[in-house]
Amino acid sequence: MRSALTCLVNPQSIAIVGASSQFGKVSGRPLKHLLEKGYRGKIWPINPRYTEMHGLTCYTSIAALPDAPDLAIVALPAQDVLATIRELGRRGTRSVVVFSSGFGEMGEAGKAMEAEMVAAAREYGMPLCGPNCLGFINAFENVYATFSQYADRETQSGPIAFVTQSGAFGTAIAALARQRGLGLGYFINTGNEADVGFADLMLTVIEDPRIKVAAGYLEGVRDGEALIRLAKRCQELGKPLVLTKVGRMAAGARAAASHTGSMAGEDAVFDAVIRQYGVIRARNEEQLLDMAQALAACPLPHGNGLGIATQSGGAGVMMADRAEEVGLAVPPVTDAIRKRLVDLLPAFGAAGNPVDVTGQFVGEPELLRESVLTLLDDPNIHVGIVWLQLMHAYVDVLVEILTETCRKATKPCLVCWVAAPEEAVRKLAAVGIPVFQAGERAVDAAAALVRHGEAQRRWQQRAPQAAHAVRTLPRLPDGVVPSVQGVSLLKDAGIPMAPVALATSEDHAVALWHKFGKGVALKIESTAITHKSDIGGVLLNLNDEAAIRTGYRSILANAARHCPDAKVDGVLVQPLASGHVELVVGVKRDPSFGMIVMVGSGGVLVEVMRDVAFRRAPFAEDEAARMLGELRMGALLDGVRGKPAVDRAQICNLLASLSRWAAEMEDQLEELDLNPVLVGPDGPVGVDCVMVIRHDASPAKR
Amino acid sequence: MRSALTCLVNPQSIAIVGASSQFGKVSGRPLKHLLEKGYRGKIWPINPRYTEMHGLTCYTSIAALPDAPDLAIVALPAQDVLATIRELGRRGTRSVVVFSSGFGEMGEAGKAMEAEMVAAAREYGMPLCGPNCLGFINAFENVYATFSQYADRETQSGPIAFVTQSGAFGTAIAALARQRGLGLGYFINTGNEADVGFADLMLTVIEDPRIKVAAGYLEGVRDGEALIRLAKRCQELGKPLVLTKVGRMAAGARAAASHTGSMAGEDAVFDAVIRQYGVIRARNEEQLLDMAQALAACPLPHGNGLGIATQSGGAGVMMADRAEEVGLAVPPVTDAIRKRLVDLLPAFGAAGNPVDVTGQFVGEPELLRESVLTLLDDPNIHVGIVWLQLMHAYVDVLVEILTETCRKATKPCLVCWVAAPEEAVRKLAAVGIPVFQAGERAVDAAAALVRHGEAQRRWQQRAPQAAHAVRTLPRLPDGVVPSVQGVSLLKDAGIPMAPVALATSEDHAVALWHKFGKGVALKIESTAITHKSDIGGVLLNLNDEAAIRTGYRSILANAARHCPDAKVDGVLVQPLASGHVELVVGVKRDPSFGMIVMVGSGGVLVEVMRDVAFRRAPFAEDEAARMLGELRMGALLDGVRGKPAVDRAQICNLLASLSRWAAEMEDQLEELDLNPVLVGPDGPVGVDCVMVIRHDASPAKR
Repeated sequence: MRSALTCLVNPQSIAIVGASSQFGKVSGRPLKHLLEKGYRGKIWPINPRYTEMHGLTCYTSIAALPDAPDLAIVALPAQDVLATIRELGRRGTRSVVVFSSGFGEMGEAGKAMEAEMVAAAREYGMPLCGPNCLGFINAFENVYATFSQYADRETQSGPIAFVTQSGAFGTAIAALARQRGLGLGYFINTGNEADVGFADLMLTVIEDPRIKVAAGYLEGVRDGEALIRLAKRCQELGKPLVLTKVGRMAAGARAAASHTGSMAGEDAVFDAVIRQYGVIRARNEEQLLDMAQALAACPLPHGNGLGIATQSGGAGVMMADRAEEVGLAVPPVTDAIRKRLVDLLPAFGAAGNPVDVTGQFVGEPELLRESVLTLLDDPNIHVGIVWLQLMHAYVDVLVEILTETCRKATKPCLVCWVAAPEEAVRKLAAVGIPVFQAGERAVDAAAALVRHGEAQRRWQQRAPQAAHAVRTLPRLPDGVVPSVQGVSLLKDAGIPMAPVALATSEDHAVALWHKFGKGVALKIESTAITHKSDIGGVLLNLNDEAAIRTGYRSILANAARHCPDAKVDGVLVQPLASGHVELVVGVKRDPSFGMIVMVGSGGVLVEVMRDVAFRRAPFAEDEAARMLGELRMGALLDGVRGKPAVDRAQICNLLASLSRWAAEMEDQLEELDLNPVLVGPDGPVGVDCVMVIRHDASPAKR
Repeated sequence: MRSALTCLVNPQSIAIVGASSQFGKVSGRPLKHLLEKGYRGKIWPINPRYTEMHGLTCYTSIAALPDAPDLAIVALPAQDVLATIRELGRRGTRSVVVFSSGFGEMGEAGKAMEAEMVAAAREYGMPLCGPNCLGFINAFENVYATFSQYADRETQSGPIAFVTQSGAFGTAIAALARQRGLGLGYFINTGNEADVGFADLMLTVIEDPRIKVAAGYLEGVRDGEALIRLAKRCQELGKPLVLTKVGRMAAGARAAASHTGSMAGEDAVFDAVIRQYGVIRARNEEQLLDMAQALAACPLPHGNGLGIATQSGGAGVMMADRAEEVGLAVPPVTDAIRKRLVDLLPAFGAAGNPVDVTGQFVGEPELLRESVLTLLDDPNIHVGIVWLQLMHAYVDVLVEILTETCRKATKPCLVCWVAAPEEAVRKLAAVGIPVFQAGERAVDAAAALVRHGEAQRRWQQRAPQAAHAVRTLPRLPDGVVPSVQGVSLLKDAGIPMAPVALATSEDHAVALWHKFGKGVALKIESTAITHKSDIGGVLLNLNDEAAIRTGYRSILANAARHCPDAKVDGVLVQPLASGHVELVVGVKRDPSFGMIVMVGSGGVLVEVMRDVAFRRAPFAEDEAARMLGELRMGALLDGVRGKPAVDRAQICNLLASLSRWAAEMEDQLEELDLNPVLVGPDGPVGVDCVMVIRHDASPAKR
């Protein structure tokens, strides 16, 4: 039997509850579109006041339907929805889409009504799309379960599935896709996502073999785990997932909070996690469509070398600028390729990369074709862009050249044609060649191809998840974990930590100092005191007995003065660690994505520069290496001002081990800070550790 | 008499040397356009083989012309141009545009030919545009001295002057302007700029009262001083100057070098200097036109508060994101404004900023109008954006609302209408309201308005250049200036420098240490040794006689071993300076813009983060404050980790003083490094100084 979600997006029968015969109304528009655009399944309008509607039998009630519908469309006032959902359930309806607003977006009463409605739908096993949504279109099967303006005109089907959390903006994006002749096989607006959400619906439609690219617009992530399942499934299917998410900056996040009513997670975490799973992020609607268009049309490049052929040196420079910005290489051509280009080109052309073929090619069409094909022959070039402008007088010859060029090329090749004649765009679209309107946008689209190619290679080469012995982890009480215990847990997990011991008396402190045999730091130990240095609870570099004794006493005295109520466990004695590079490493439980590991520049840099990278736990050493690669402090790791380079592999090992441990601790670990982690010739060592346990925080499940 | 440059851009007579009767040819196209588009001045084709051409008298030679032409168009093969220029000069021609290629862009021989041609033109006082250019259009007077494809269709005149160094890309940009109904009063391609360049031509056309906005495309700056003159004149006239320059990144700069044949100056310097003079930089062609369009259509905002009205919460979030990114505020509305919005809006709207008016307004047009006007009433909001999508069924009502709204608004208000009906765009254009196609692009355009408003306020409030006593500066010999002398020069210029003295013997060093009365550093002093610490030439924190003596000897020994040929002047003795914030400050002579002052984060930060800001000297304290504002290390200045804040004013004073001194030293100072400048409670102090003199480096003139 087909799954309920498949019935939702591809129903063989559709009931319209409260259908209106007036096509302009919200409850009339789906009927209009289903009839006019030739939906081939059964359409069952329900309205007690009619027996017939636009030539269809109209039913007086849900109970009166001739059969259980695959999908029911509900566009009733909010207060009538709950009873309807129950009736639909009783009639055996497979799935529902609810347009009605007045639910979760309208305060507490609305939220309660929404929860009741969802409970009813779940009782009957009916997935529910909405409420407060515009519905959806399956353009392959002419399913128009929507009142979106997008349906008012032609909705060409095509290889892109577009799912949007926003109705109005999503409609605009779909209309922009239509403007450029880009077919959306599915257009789905998820609205409040009270029951099924963005990822559930995308997971359903991405299975359709007619779909090549998943494109989405997000305002927040309600189910991070589902999003990651989606990302993984897309990698498995080899289909790219491109997402635009708003709320990148503080101002946007504030606006989003007031708009969606829920605080978005930190955007930097979202950004890092989706990239970790091979998702491509588009910064806005135009980039989303540019990328989706390229991904739907082109094969994947095997590397990040961009070859640029232009008739304008300046446009070539601008594209080279942008390529560097987005991490593509614009490699110089090899000597052999240069020689072939020189032989081809007029004297005033430029036989490099970018190659400037000048306007000469309008007289000699093969000049353009051969230049591009030669450039793409370069072993360091993996994707090409041909840049043109205007040329209204040469549409046919150029369309022919470009078609031939793209056909003969064994590597992906994009066409950027600024102020292109409409006829040319149309003719090229007809042979499957998308035309980009601006050089920078073509480069961004090429970057999407490169990123998806990289993600696919990573996916195919991924190491099987190492079978870790399932250890019995201690069940810790909520609160701050005592330092010595925390350090011991981390050492057990393979994380290098500086030795530390707890002194419970002055003599004990002295004995520990003797035992360590070098200068030590003393730190107050109390689970109630987390900012130890702020209260004079830390003394560094003590190396004689008198200093240890005085220090021990003064630290306890400071604690007693500043935190009279804090239970003090004693004073930590820790031999001085060394290392010329300072990192901070942390773990936190993210509301969307579960355990997130952070690494950043330590010391003053972390506060001033916010130079940090995130990943979702667990991850392997190669992913940790990419984290380090994202840090701007990379140069510090490789040695500056005469300092030696540190061993990145050892840091990667620490991060990967920590990530595995964090994943295992997900149901109890709230937060962990290792600050600093010092890195010297012997590798990294965590010096200070604050570990906070909190159970029952409903962490995301994996 | 009209200036020769005015004759160039607005000629009353045009001679076409080597005119062709075939309109398809480069030498026929200007004639075609002049005739077809109704140029009202005199057209004098010159071609010995004809006596008449398309109804015009054709002259057999330049000498045979009935009068001296205001402008001559030269489209001959390169080798014939020089003789023609001389003939034109002899005939009293006022100005020339040379289309011909094969000059400076074609290697040494071409460069020599170009120099000869320019010399000839200058001999006769004829400004020369080109060579290797597409020529230009003055669309007001129908002057078509061009063979650009842009002229093939309608070239609507309008308030924007567009000057481009690139022919092909410039043509594309002009065509894009036409696509959006944006009139270019002037379209000028400067080509090789052998004689007159970008700034000269823009300086000419910006004086035209019909021009409101100067828009330019640059690949390199040949005359930085002229560009600054242009920027200042634009400020004086209150006309914004918007520039796109390619070569922002290393890859682009490399491509530019191979394309233009000249190494571009550092882009960061260009970027800082043009902003200093109020120029707005657009990152690409689309942004250039978006900004020019807004600047031509809108009044200037009096602050940087952006108000956003949407029918999509998500689009509002995206615009708020972008606003923050480009330095605009999206302030929450005041309580009074919120109350008025709440009264206006339907319950599911959002009465804040962004304000979400929902789709409800199609039934109640005044809802949109009043929401926008109310939002713009907020005292913290200075510019508004209204965001719409599709709405094909409501074109007339929306055009009416938007027209009324913009008419009633007392603050600038932009319309962003995604996937807008063409009819709506056309109708709004007709009443002078530009329609932006994407939210982020509208925000960027709003930012251009804000930036120009700020620049105008700065210009109007600029302090009169303080009359500095013209000091007789010493004329220094080329090479590295001895430290003690360099420090003394800087102190004379009002720059706080740590004391330093030169010891020429061990005893002398000890005496100086006694005199300073505190710990000192010893540093080798030799103009031949610039990297002192690399050769063991620096010892820090010496504070007893034995250490001074040993140190003195070891430093000299190290110098003798590592640099046996270096003439050593002695050993510098410098009391230890203190300060918890480390800056680097420098001056360098830039090939385009003359003396450039740099300030950056010191220590490891400058190398790892490249956190630096530039300005052209001289500048005042307010400009120095903006420099500091650009540094990412700003938080360090304001105190982190318990460190106190430093006094920014004292740093600004140092920078401004240094900039004035650098400007005076322009004809001899090549480079100056103050590294570090330490900043503590007593203000900044330069600790180490490397000053390099080089005369005759043809510095840019001011």
